Amino acid sequence: MPETELPVVGFHPYLWGDPAHHGGLSPAILAALSALGVTAPARPAAEPASVPLPPVALPDSARAALESLVGAEHVDSGHDARLAHTRGWSTPDLLRLRGGDAADAPDAVVFPGSHDEVVAVLRVCAEHRIAVVPYSGGTSVVGGLAPARAGFAGVVTLDLRRLDALVEVDPVSRTAVLQAGLRGPEAERLLREHGLTLGHFPQSYEGASIGGYAAARSAGQSSAGYGRFDEMVVGLVLATPRGTVELGTAPKSAAGPDLRQLVLGSEGVLGVITSVRVRVRPVPAERVFEGWRFPSFEAGADALRQLAQDGPLPTVLRLSDELETAINLADPAAAGFGDGPGGCLAITGYEGGAAEVAARRAAATEALLAAGGTALGPGPGESWREGRFRAPYLRDPILAAGGLVETLETATFWSGLHRLRAAVSEALTTELTGRGTPPVVLCHISHVYETGASLYFTVVCAQAADPLAQWAAAKTAANRAIRSCGAAITHHHGVGTDHRAAYAEEIGPLAVAALRAVKQALDPAGILNPGVLLPPPGG
Amino acid sequence: MPETELPVVGFHPYLWGDPAHHGGLSPAILAALSALGVTAPARPAAEPASVPLPPVALPDSARAALESLVGAEHVDSGHDARLAHTRGWSTPDLLRLRGGDAADAPDAVVFPGSHDEVVAVLRVCAEHRIAVVPYSGGTSVVGGLAPARAGFAGVVTLDLRRLDALVEVDPVSRTAVLQAGLRGPEAERLLREHGLTLGHFPQSYEGASIGGYAAARSAGQSSAGYGRFDEMVVGLVLATPRGTVELGTAPKSAAGPDLRQLVLGSEGVLGVITSVRVRVRPVPAERVFEGWRFPSFEAGADALRQLAQDGPLPTVLRLSDELETAINLADPAAAGFGDGPGGCLAITGYEGGAAEVAARRAAATEALLAAGGTALGPGPGESWREGRFRAPYLRDPILAAGGLVETLETATFWSGLHRLRAAVSEALTTELTGRGTPPVVLCHISHVYETGASLYFTVVCAQAADPLAQWAAAKTAANRAIRSCGAAITHHHGVGTDHRAAYAEEIGPLAVAALRAVKQALDPAGILNPGVLLPPPGG
Repeated sequence: MPETELPVVGFHPYLWGDPAHHGGLSPAILAALSALGVTAPARPAAEPASVPLPPVALPDSARAALESLVGAEHVDSGHDARLAHTRGWSTPDLLRLRGGDAADAPDAVVFPGSHDEVVAVLRVCAEHRIAVVPYSGGTSVVGGLAPARAGFAGVVTLDLRRLDALVEVDPVSRTAVLQAGLRGPEAERLLREHGLTLGHFPQSYEGASIGGYAAARSAGQSSAGYGRFDEMVVGLVLATPRGTVELGTAPKSAAGPDLRQLVLGSEGVLGVITSVRVRVRPVPAERVFEGWRFPSFEAGADALRQLAQDGPLPTVLRLSDELETAINLADPAAAGFGDGPGGCLAITGYEGGAAEVAARRAAATEALLAAGGTALGPGPGESWREGRFRAPYLRDPILAAGGLVETLETATFWSGLHRLRAAVSEALTTELTGRGTPPVVLCHISHVYETGASLYFTVVCAQAADPLAQWAAAKTAANRAIRSCGAAITHHHGVGTDHRAAYAEEIGPLAVAALRAVKQALDPAGILNPGVLLPPPGG
Repeated sequence: MPETELPVVGFHPYLWGDPAHHGGLSPAILAALSALGVTAPARPAAEPASVPLPPVALPDSARAALESLVGAEHVDSGHDARLAHTRGWSTPDLLRLRGGDAADAPDAVVFPGSHDEVVAVLRVCAEHRIAVVPYSGGTSVVGGLAPARAGFAGVVTLDLRRLDALVEVDPVSRTAVLQAGLRGPEAERLLREHGLTLGHFPQSYEGASIGGYAAARSAGQSSAGYGRFDEMVVGLVLATPRGTVELGTAPKSAAGPDLRQLVLGSEGVLGVITSVRVRVRPVPAERVFEGWRFPSFEAGADALRQLAQDGPLPTVLRLSDELETAINLADPAAAGFGDGPGGCLAITGYEGGAAEVAARRAAATEALLAAGGTALGPGPGESWREGRFRAPYLRDPILAAGGLVETLETATFWSGLHRLRAAVSEALTTELTGRGTPPVVLCHISHVYETGASLYFTVVCAQAADPLAQWAAAKTAANRAIRSCGAAITHHHGVGTDHRAAYAEEIGPLAVAALRAVKQALDPAGILNPGVLLPPPGG
């Protein structure tokens, strides 16, 4: 079996993001971990080369069919390829791999070269009853890459990295067609050659890709200005085992339900999004980021709500609670757990034409001052901007040091926001404290809408003897709190397998039946990401 | 059978809108019709009381079950109720009723009083295989109220007018829960008691209702500022024969596909929307409407595109082509076919807080001047605003005079807009001229987006001997042109039965199969609006 010619592992198989950005922990973080009861480092992580993989289960006939479709060099069952495509980047995913558990490794990684090859691969896999995991960035933090194997002859990961073209630019309509395998930075680089940008910068930007943005309904850090990814998509092409679905004849229409919104967020269970037509914008001429302090989270949230409802909206608008603020302001670069200057830090960012930015910033500044904000100038804003993809890099060294860190997020309407924040914080704190590992729970608002906002929680505590069970219990408690508040089980991480049960509860049995029916229509053999989003057959 | 206590006919059964606003035609219009070859008035319209209705086909057991659910006084098989609920307000609908054809009359009109009663009625109808036409405003112009009867024991119209409550106002989140049977003006009146507005003003505003806005994915004349109705809906409750679906835990989320967008635009075939949670806004303190002239449609479209892409967006933004402009400016009140002063008329409207409106208007004015526009002041703007619900009232007297008038609309991306306009105009002109009735075809842009816009066509010509066949041929030609340009078969009128075939072509057979699967899951007996949106069973 030839190893693929493509570089399979641009990233370490189980360290977050770009290996070049990994480093140690600051003395402040180490002291904080100690204060949380971390007494000894965790067991050293297994070396990638020595992690045992399950035997390859792919039937020879299926392999031969796949190789004839995409070329033998694009079907890879080598150790490195399989390990690199095992699960995603959640803390449980990392913990399992660090512990040497790669039971979810695919039997092979297939690298199709075109939309038509994707359709053909899906047909072959349906014939042979091979489960298929669509994969573009591989950055899921909700178990979106761990399919149910039961009842299948094998599992292949469909890695879309060869679908990496900027297919078309329409400068008049300001749209571009991007293929699914393009990672964020590469898509931006290609668009910038035309003076354009997507403006989509989720925290996973370095690793995540266009197909994942679409399939998981991503929201970037500049969503206030550029919108969510589902608002950027005006057209898409979906490969299914039964053929192709192509959607998007106009920005908006009354031609039936907006089926684009049925595919967006479908997490690979209805088909494989191979390209999207997205709204793009000119690369901004001007960019200003600033910090603001509010006396309390409630006061800051009121200010954000006012901007979201009455305008003008900055391009980036965020608010940290008191504890997260203390950490950020004490040492923004290292995010050390020091004592901050009190209050809550908000970040405002403005991007656009010079005159437009000046006008918008002036009006927003006036509103923020009137709402009780104190301007902190560009320092904290620029710090946030420079470090905005860095926080997840702290996770690996914290895990190694014996700490546990994970994030979760939700969204609700403004009138329920503070109740939701209190309920989730309390659930996490009670559960983890009860298990002997009292946590620190940080929270921020990172996405605002006229009618509501998201809440993003970061949880840090000492690792228990069984950190997987420890986090599962904490997560279950948080999910229960979210559900009891009637909030969304996820704002931008997605459903995957981790949120599947809560998601079914959120939309109810009839809506689950409707989704199952769509899946049955497009994927009658049920091979696409079984167990993700919806319970697996018989599950 | 008792007649319902509720006023069944707020409107004439087959004249558009409020009877109080009906009148004659100006001499200019009569002259224009004459120039189009109209030589004699049409046959007089049948008197409502003398229009024959098909025998009532409802089985006694079904009627008894329905009466026991909602009360005998809320099941009406009287002539007036049946005739008033026969079809909608399209020109073919009016032509048929004027000609005394009420073959599509329902067997009974049922007036449920609550969501639970709607669910119960649907269950009973599923058991008895009675087709159900959900009805709130009854203003469909695409045959959305003419179900396929074949295979059903009867047809009932489910009139939601008793679901007319403003259920809840959340001033912090700026949301309101409105029941489906509220007509536009009544919803606005209730919201205004709280200082709030939806800002949703489609041309059918006087008759259309909340449930129809949602089910048909309505777009109002102020969509640039307030958004489309599908953008206002943050939650909804759907009654289906299998029970209730309740959606909307947050403004936006990544919790799977956005199933709200699967229900919106589903035109009653997946269930009956009984209430929606909508984003609302404060009643605007300031309101300014103005006219602009552009030397050509292309120049005006470029100016609109610039505002849509680079901002600021007025609340209302429209552009008429040269011919529509000539008509509008010659006599805005009567819309007579006189000679105008040339060029293309654009309307800009601004609503909001005084300072915000002033700033937005100043920036938009600068952009429109730079784009070659000539400011015409508030005169044409106010004229448009005052007359904005009046144009459809001309249809009935034009039909009576022997003319034929109808509208159709589409949407596409900016780069294809002029090609689309030319193709549709040419298709209509060629088809109708070839049939001996050369038309006048007017066009305007009424809804703009960053990536594209809508086109709205008005067609006037002399009535042929068989005006239904005449219009069907013209419409088929227009649909073919729209499809050949890859545009949306409808921007805001909906699919109904009139666009069903073109819609299936637009989304393709796999997407149709997916929608059918959803319908099968929620409405296994297929009783909901059979033949609307999707082909009827076996069709």
